[in-house]
Amino acid sequence: MNTSQSQALFQKTYDYVRETSLLESTLALLEWDEQTGIPAHAAEFRANQVAFLSGLIHQRATNCDYGAWLSELANSELAHPSDSPVAASIRGLKRDFDKSVQLPLDLVTRTARAVTVGQQIWSLAKPKNDYAAFLPILKEIVALRREEATILSKNHACKYDSLLDQYEEHAKSDEIAVVFTELREQLVPLVQRLTNSKSGPDGKSIAGIFDVAQQQELSKWVATQIGFDFDRGRLDETVHPFCTTLGPHDHRILTRYFEDSFSSGLYGTLHEAGHGLYEQGLPTEWFGMPAGYAASLGVHESQSRLWENMVGRSREFWQWCLPHAQQRFPQLKNVSVDQIFADLNRVEPSLIRIEADEATYNLHILLRFELEKELIDGNLTCEELPSAWGDRYESYLGIRPKDDREGVMQDVHWAAGLIGYFPTYTLGNIFAAQLMAAAETELGDIPAMVANGDFAPLLNWLRQHVHSFGSCLKPTDLMEKATQSKLSSKPLMAYLTRKLVPLYG
Amino acid sequence: MNTSQSQALFQKTYDYVRETSLLESTLALLEWDEQTGIPAHAAEFRANQVAFLSGLIHQRATNCDYGAWLSELANSELAHPSDSPVAASIRGLKRDFDKSVQLPLDLVTRTARAVTVGQQIWSLAKPKNDYAAFLPILKEIVALRREEATILSKNHACKYDSLLDQYEEHAKSDEIAVVFTELREQLVPLVQRLTNSKSGPDGKSIAGIFDVAQQQELSKWVATQIGFDFDRGRLDETVHPFCTTLGPHDHRILTRYFEDSFSSGLYGTLHEAGHGLYEQGLPTEWFGMPAGYAASLGVHESQSRLWENMVGRSREFWQWCLPHAQQRFPQLKNVSVDQIFADLNRVEPSLIRIEADEATYNLHILLRFELEKELIDGNLTCEELPSAWGDRYESYLGIRPKDDREGVMQDVHWAAGLIGYFPTYTLGNIFAAQLMAAAETELGDIPAMVANGDFAPLLNWLRQHVHSFGSCLKPTDLMEKATQSKLSSKPLMAYLTRKLVPLYG
Repeated sequence: MNTSQSQALFQKTYDYVRETSLLESTLALLEWDEQTGIPAHAAEFRANQVAFLSGLIHQRATNCDYGAWLSELANSELAHPSDSPVAASIRGLKRDFDKSVQLPLDLVTRTARAVTVGQQIWSLAKPKNDYAAFLPILKEIVALRREEATILSKNHACKYDSLLDQYEEHAKSDEIAVVFTELREQLVPLVQRLTNSKSGPDGKSIAGIFDVAQQQELSKWVATQIGFDFDRGRLDETVHPFCTTLGPHDHRILTRYFEDSFSSGLYGTLHEAGHGLYEQGLPTEWFGMPAGYAASLGVHESQSRLWENMVGRSREFWQWCLPHAQQRFPQLKNVSVDQIFADLNRVEPSLIRIEADEATYNLHILLRFELEKELIDGNLTCEELPSAWGDRYESYLGIRPKDDREGVMQDVHWAAGLIGYFPTYTLGNIFAAQLMAAAETELGDIPAMVANGDFAPLLNWLRQHVHSFGSCLKPTDLMEKATQSKLSSKPLMAYLTRKLVPLYG
Repeated sequence: MNTSQSQALFQKTYDYVRETSLLESTLALLEWDEQTGIPAHAAEFRANQVAFLSGLIHQRATNCDYGAWLSELANSELAHPSDSPVAASIRGLKRDFDKSVQLPLDLVTRTARAVTVGQQIWSLAKPKNDYAAFLPILKEIVALRREEATILSKNHACKYDSLLDQYEEHAKSDEIAVVFTELREQLVPLVQRLTNSKSGPDGKSIAGIFDVAQQQELSKWVATQIGFDFDRGRLDETVHPFCTTLGPHDHRILTRYFEDSFSSGLYGTLHEAGHGLYEQGLPTEWFGMPAGYAASLGVHESQSRLWENMVGRSREFWQWCLPHAQQRFPQLKNVSVDQIFADLNRVEPSLIRIEADEATYNLHILLRFELEKELIDGNLTCEELPSAWGDRYESYLGIRPKDDREGVMQDVHWAAGLIGYFPTYTLGNIFAAQLMAAAETELGDIPAMVANGDFAPLLNWLRQHVHSFGSCLKPTDLMEKATQSKLSSKPLMAYLTRKLVPLYG
């Protein structure tokens, strides 16, 4: 092909993929609506709508002509330089196409069925603490994911990596394991040191009842202040907070409020607004194409954790925010910045991941990463999983679940087939600390800016060094370029130590 | 075809149409979401999503193979008896197919473009009172609709009827005109008599500020009490109230609240809940097929008007509802049933249709019906429209708009190409009164039931005589079967006279 032929073919491909994105974003609306108050009896028909649209999208994504265009483009001059938006999009689309045609339709269908059934059985078995009822479908799901991993693992050092790669492109589990092990070797003694301390925050300043309408207003106001653009987004309520994108200018964050929790709604908002800021910062002209995608789940999580924890749980954030919170909640009138800061940063080993504090959280993830890798590698059976889970909790956190409800059945992930997903949570925390350190090197005193409610310099730095790249760079390359360093647990450990040790005398 | 072949072909057609309905109901969700708080900058992409899905639906609806199936089915034994759900569905689908292929694509496209531009120009020209700016596009829209009417009018007595038929199937404008003229000849003197009276309600009992959160709760509670099923529906807020269906068990009503209006939010809810009750009463197994459609816009409007006005503005409704309203609004504490009943039924000639009372409302409709028919028949030009409008208002209501903002440009309908739509509003009022009279004949003292908050007998009667038929019968046949009478303005005039005259001494 000559240049103008390549460009015409790229334009045709672009138009085709952008059309597919109209269906994908409509599918996202069907799912958003399902999570924000769909009538009880409407769920079955909604599932039919979702299945039909998913089928249309699948047809388009596996269309032979489209695959041929991508092959031609991959061999054209447009595939260079490799980090241009055009080249990155061609590469990403071809990768997705190859993967979707590489997996037998039969396997895809059996997996889709198994994870639907898996989540149903899980939701029934968990409250009954009935791991035996969950075991057969879990075994089936693990077997199906291993089958998939075997097919996809040609280009990967181990089977697990081919699953991990679906959430964190190009990630290698042995490299991650090195950093995670380093992290664990420092986190376990830090957590012990903190929990053995005789002093420390007791949570009293944020105990009690907090009017939900006021929580809603504070959360929306805080999201606006950190830069979430409500002309291009919404904040709504749901059972499990999430963030979704319905168009290049339509980013929706969802949280939940409890009147007996000051922090759930607000930190749910900050976390999801962090995701939303990333989505709002992606290049809109590439919406629906890889150059407009987020780089990876780990990088996405770095944005949510950075705003939720490194900004939102800092002393300086509360210097700025407390007066605003006091206006809405009279019971905070006599609370000091130091008190609320300390109470929002209590460390306490616990059994439930989603309720964990910043320090222990990563230990919950690390052991899941180890266990799921062993499952896929064939070094652990589903029958052995509950006791391996208990042993690992005892070893890392010093506590053991009394049953499987608060143990191996607490998360939906494996029931939903999400194996290789957990490590992206801790990668997100590691990336966040690395990014924050790099931003401070360049911008200076970020805490002082936060104390003034001046979040724009930090957001602009993230826009420039992370958001604007879409997925043109590999996640590791993006992070190295932004932070001038390789993956390292040091900034995260330094941050946690610096913040938490003084709180515990 | 033998019987089993016909049945197999019908099943294939049913499956195909039900698949199309998955897209149509998804399109309805895109539109519902657009009206319930889509982010400001997201509207353009939403228009692309809507256009793409509309295109997919159009492709399916005009597919040649599908058309051939319908022709075969129309000639099969399944086409009899004609009022069976199967026969009615075949007939309705074939009718829609024939119409969609009868109109040249070029005309459809030009009309779609003109009404989009028309609404944009209207929304800019109306606040500036600039009819001259609106005139060219209005002329284009009228010309396009006349062109369409000419193509479709083979089976109709006049061009206008082929437009009317799209909203009220099989309706004949000359038959409607007879009844509308009768109605006008009685309404004009009734309104004069009421407005010349020296006594009458002054609206004071419902003046003042009404907490919006309490209005929301009262509205939702009332909707529940009259039978709207919130397990199969939702109540939300929007700028222009409407009702939409997103699935066989997903009916969404939307209203709007103003703190300085006690009645807007509540009567918006009652009106839309009336539509919603009809949708919830259609046979769900025929969802997406004509046997599961509402019979016509006029019949639909009869359901909304019946619940809004004949039930919701009755003295007995307020016997039941006032104590509940008083619990929420302390300012109603000393208001009597007679006072609030009277104040919610004030009659006053005014220029704006959507603010009109029950008596004058129909005069607003009648003159629009007369004018739009003259436009299509070629007896009136768009240039002459504003003065004809003013003359007709003066003649029917005794008042004349001082400008086109409160005159010919007040409604979006013609700018949106909706010509033939207006008469369905008054047909709805006429049908509602006929239905209510028939229901009373069969059920006895409905007002006494309403006074007890017992709405189920009336709803069940409507389910049995209207809702459950879908569109298996022609609207006129459905109404004659339910009411044992032909189209007549008598029950409506009797109802208005009985209710309103005593209020005006």
